[in-house]
Amino acid sequence: MNAGGSLRLMRERRPLVHQITNYVVMNETANATLALGALPVMAHAVEEVEEMASIASALVLNIGTLSERWVEAMLLAGRAATARGIPVVLDPVGAGATRYRTDTARRILDAVGVTVLRGNPGEMATLVGADAEVRGVESMAVGIEPAELAREAARRLRVIASVTGLVDHVSDGERVLAVTGGHEWLSTVTGTGCMASALTGCFLAGKREEPLEAAAEALAAFKVVAENAAAKSDGPGTFHAHLYDELYDLDPDTLDAATQIEEL
Amino acid sequence: MNAGGSLRLMRERRPLVHQITNYVVMNETANATLALGALPVMAHAVEEVEEMASIASALVLNIGTLSERWVEAMLLAGRAATARGIPVVLDPVGAGATRYRTDTARRILDAVGVTVLRGNPGEMATLVGADAEVRGVESMAVGIEPAELAREAARRLRVIASVTGLVDHVSDGERVLAVTGGHEWLSTVTGTGCMASALTGCFLAGKREEPLEAAAEALAAFKVVAENAAAKSDGPGTFHAHLYDELYDLDPDTLDAATQIEEL
Amino acid sequence: MNAGGSLRLMRERRPLVHQITNYVVMNETANATLALGALPVMAHAVEEVEEMASIASALVLNIGTLSERWVEAMLLAGRAATARGIPVVLDPVGAGATRYRTDTARRILDAVGVTVLRGNPGEMATLVGADAEVRGVESMAVGIEPAELAREAARRLRVIASVTGLVDHVSDGERVLAVTGGHEWLSTVTGTGCMASALTGCFLAGKREEPLEAAAEALAAFKVVAENAAAKSDGPGTFHAHLYDELYDLDPDTLDAATQIEEL
Repeated sequence: MNAGGSLRLMRERRPLVHQITNYVVMNETANATLALGALPVMAHAVEEVEEMASIASALVLNIGTLSERWVEAMLLAGRAATARGIPVVLDPVGAGATRYRTDTARRILDAVGVTVLRGNPGEMATLVGADAEVRGVESMAVGIEPAELAREAARRLRVIASVTGLVDHVSDGERVLAVTGGHEWLSTVTGTGCMASALTGCFLAGKREEPLEAAAEALAAFKVVAENAAAKSDGPGTFHAHLYDELYDLDPDTLDAATQIEEL
Repeated sequence: MNAGGSLRLMRERRPLVHQITNYVVMNETANATLALGALPVMAHAVEEVEEMASIASALVLNIGTLSERWVEAMLLAGRAATARGIPVVLDPVGAGATRYRTDTARRILDAVGVTVLRGNPGEMATLVGADAEVRGVESMAVGIEPAELAREAARRLRVIASVTGLVDHVSDGERVLAVTGGHEWLSTVTGTGCMASALTGCFLAGKREEPLEAAAEALAAFKVVAENAAAKSDGPGTFHAHLYDELYDLDPDTLDAATQIEEL
Repeated sequence: MNAGGSLRLMRERRPLVHQITNYVVMNETANATLALGALPVMAHAVEEVEEMASIASALVLNIGTLSERWVEAMLLAGRAATARGIPVVLDPVGAGATRYRTDTARRILDAVGVTVLRGNPGEMATLVGADAEVRGVESMAVGIEPAELAREAARRLRVIASVTGLVDHVSDGERVLAVTGGHEWLSTVTGTGCMASALTGCFLAGKREEPLEAAAEALAAFKVVAENAAAKSDGPGTFHAHLYDELYDLDPDTLDAATQIEEL
């Protein structure tokens, strides 16, 4: 694991990360991408998504505020990226909350070569057919440990499964990496999960041959950033602003020293 | 009136507040909801809004950036909520500015059992047929005092009318509650009216049997929060960030002591 | 040049600035407009854009996240504004990145009386047929100096061309004004270009008979604001929040003293 080296490499390349994401967090994930050192582009028109995805170094799909036209665009962009070997991150926001969300997440998983599936435990449990308690966009898995859930999701859905929570678990179906750290205020700002997905896209763009490591390193970096931001903040609002400061200031060597990734 | 108790109860229940709102403020109302202690969910697809509204504890409809498909979704969600007795807040942003906005607000009022109508004086005056000066999304009522306007709107439109301004007036058609406090910077940040509507949804979710009180308490809480945030800020941008800190930090006992609600 | 006087006049008139812009920056451009002292309104429904544009003092069109229905709305609003002599700002976000964006920018330029075209060098180069390197929404012109590019764009496209970068260049096809100052953090926050376009709309609204000067003054004001904000910030996130504080606090006399506009 070498999060600092991955970050350094990514900043040198400044990869274009095409994001088709939800209305709530578009500004936030664009700013997180930019602050980290990559180049975000938001484009969702069916007329242009294939062209845009084809010139990107990673594609991030997020179903947080979906509708038919957007799903169509995600499928077009996803297939174009897959055809060119461009890594794809899928964030199945709210899978399990409504049938439409669950079905759409499955449609994308079927049609697109998703590299990393980044979700919370309830969304992941829903997609592997385990029990889940889902309320809107917050959810829990029931009766399955997150490490096992990550391994199971990776095997069944043939992805790198990135299950985030107090401790994050990332698996390729064999290995499971646990990422610790972070701060409780991450759960008080909307879209921090979506930011984690965007940052996963940034790290993948610079390190596509090692997607398991890239996915874990992205989460480790975000947790370090959150700790640094919290130390300067008084609550969710100032914490939110400081997240961008700390993403921008994140030093590769500091990141290496602070990264908490353990193989289970 | 017991704003502190309402806040405490709401935080214990952590109600899901389904919001179909405008593009400008989606992130802001989600964050305000989350910081206060409720659980926001944004969903607008006609394929899922009935299902989502049905599992929510309150529904907030906001026509700030409307278009046909979104209006259709608001009507579907609103009818589903009404059928299940779930309280509905309507924010008629820009009613009076264009015919389309005025007509849409009326369509929703006709089709949905709106519990609380939260708007500014010009929007309210437009909807009760009084004179208004409307410029975009800012407006004034002409020739009618806000307390009277609130009472009149409540009677004619059969809602709890929540008319916000320097002083807010909330009425069920008989009683009128005046809420004072707040800070001038509220008018320098876009979407603070929309936030007031979202917070109204949160309070209603926890106290649906007393909608007049819940609506007034939500506004009182927001005014206290604004005062606290302003004391720590240098202008609209830092004030905006501090609003979330203060929503999160708002203590029920402090709220009770600081609440300024007077029955006229 | 009299940026302070323009600002003072604009604040007195408090013009309504109708914006049809992208999902990523809607909140940000609305807040920048409001903090500066004008009145933003966001409306994109084909049912209402002509009516809204007709009562506005300026119209800002931004193709950052376009789709067919939005393009249609921009054309309707643009034609309505043109017919009434209302100044129009066009921000051709990502022209050159995809054919759809380039074509749409050209469609709007053909159909609407665009007053000011505000873009980055690569977008401008694309629209005048010069070489450009475009990656998503960032781009460079190749083989043409920005001052010459601004003059050329103004002549060929019959607009005031406002080409922003480290130094901004604004031209009516004869004169070229160079605007200096600003801060590097402007490039670390998404939507600062879009904000520059919105502020251009505000200044134009108050000074439509001198669009060259108004466009340069808007950029000069934004650069002064960025310098002031950077002095109080630790990175992109806190800088972003302070931008609104400083727009709100911007004093006309201070602006006059700090404005750096030079005729080349």
